[in-house]
Amino acid sequence: MDEFMQAAIDEARQGLAEGGIPIGSVIVHQGRIIGRGHNRRVQQGSAVLHGEMDAFENAGRQPARVYAESVLYTTLSPCSMCSGAILLYGIPKVVIGENQTFLGEEALLRSRGVEVEVLQDAECVEMMRGFIANRPALWNEDIGES
Amino acid sequence: MDEFMQAAIDEARQGLAEGGIPIGSVIVHQGRIIGRGHNRRVQQGSAVLHGEMDAFENAGRQPARVYAESVLYTTLSPCSMCSGAILLYGIPKVVIGENQTFLGEEALLRSRGVEVEVLQDAECVEMMRGFIANRPALWNEDIGES
Repeated sequence: MDEFMQAAIDEARQGLAEGGIPIGSVIVHQGRIIGRGHNRRVQQGSAVLHGEMDAFENAGRQPARVYAESVLYTTLSPCSMCSGAILLYGIPKVVIGENQTFLGEEALLRSRGVEVEVLQDAECVEMMRGFIANRPALWNEDIGES
Repeated sequence: MDEFMQAAIDEARQGLAEGGIPIGSVIVHQGRIIGRGHNRRVQQGSAVLHGEMDAFENAGRQPARVYAESVLYTTLSPCSMCSGAILLYGIPKVVIGENQTFLGEEALLRSRGVEVEVLQDAECVEMMRGFIANRPALWNEDIGES
C-alpha cells in the first residue's frame, strides 16, 4: 500500500472510531503530508467538512505554488464540492482509493486537466460498503440525497 | 434591494470590518434565512470557508428536501468549490450580486439545471473593486491564483 493512501485510510478509520463517516484524505507536497483530515459531519455537525475539505482546512492557507506541486489522496471518489476545491486550488493530481460505492466528479476533474488515478483498493471498498449498509440515512445525508 | 441580497451584503460588510474578504451569503428556505456567512480566510485562517461555504456550515445539517426548496444568495459569482457545494446539496436557484470582478462556475451550474440570476448590483461591484485594489495578494490567494 502506498504510504499516503495508507495515511488517508488511517484518517478514515479514525473518523469511524469517532462515530463518523469513514472517509479520509491527505494532501502531499513534495513527498510530505501538509494536511490530513476526515469527514466531520457527525463529530462537528459540519455540512462542509468532507474528508478532502478537512485536509484542505488542516493544511491551512497555502500559496498557489504549493497547491500546484501537491497530490491529494482520498479514500473515496470526490463529490462535486471536494472536486470544486481541488479545481479552485489547482491541485494537479488526485489519487482515489475507490469509486465503486460512490462515483464523484472524476470526469469533470479530468476535463479540467487534473490527473486522476483510481486504485480500487479492497480495504477502501470494504470500509465504505460496511458503513453504507450500517448507516444508510447518514450516508445519504452526506451526499445530499436524503 | 432584495432583502436577502441585502442580508448577504451585510455579511460581506461585516467581513470587511473584521479585516476580511468582503463576500457574504445567505441560504433562504421558504422565505426564511436558515444560514448566513461570510468569507473567513483572514479571521479563521480558513482555506475552505468562502462566504457561501460559511453559510452552508452555519445552516447546519439539513435534510435534502430543505436544500431542494432553498435559494442561495451570494454577493459574488461562486467559485468552483462553492458551486460544487451548491450542486452537492441540490440547491435549485442561486442569486448572485455581481460577476464583473470574478466570474465563477455559472456555466457549470446552469448546465446542471441550477437557475442562476445575476443582479449586477453596483454596491457589490464597488465593494469588490475597492477590496481587490487594496488587497490584491489576499484576493489572489482566495481564488487560488497566488
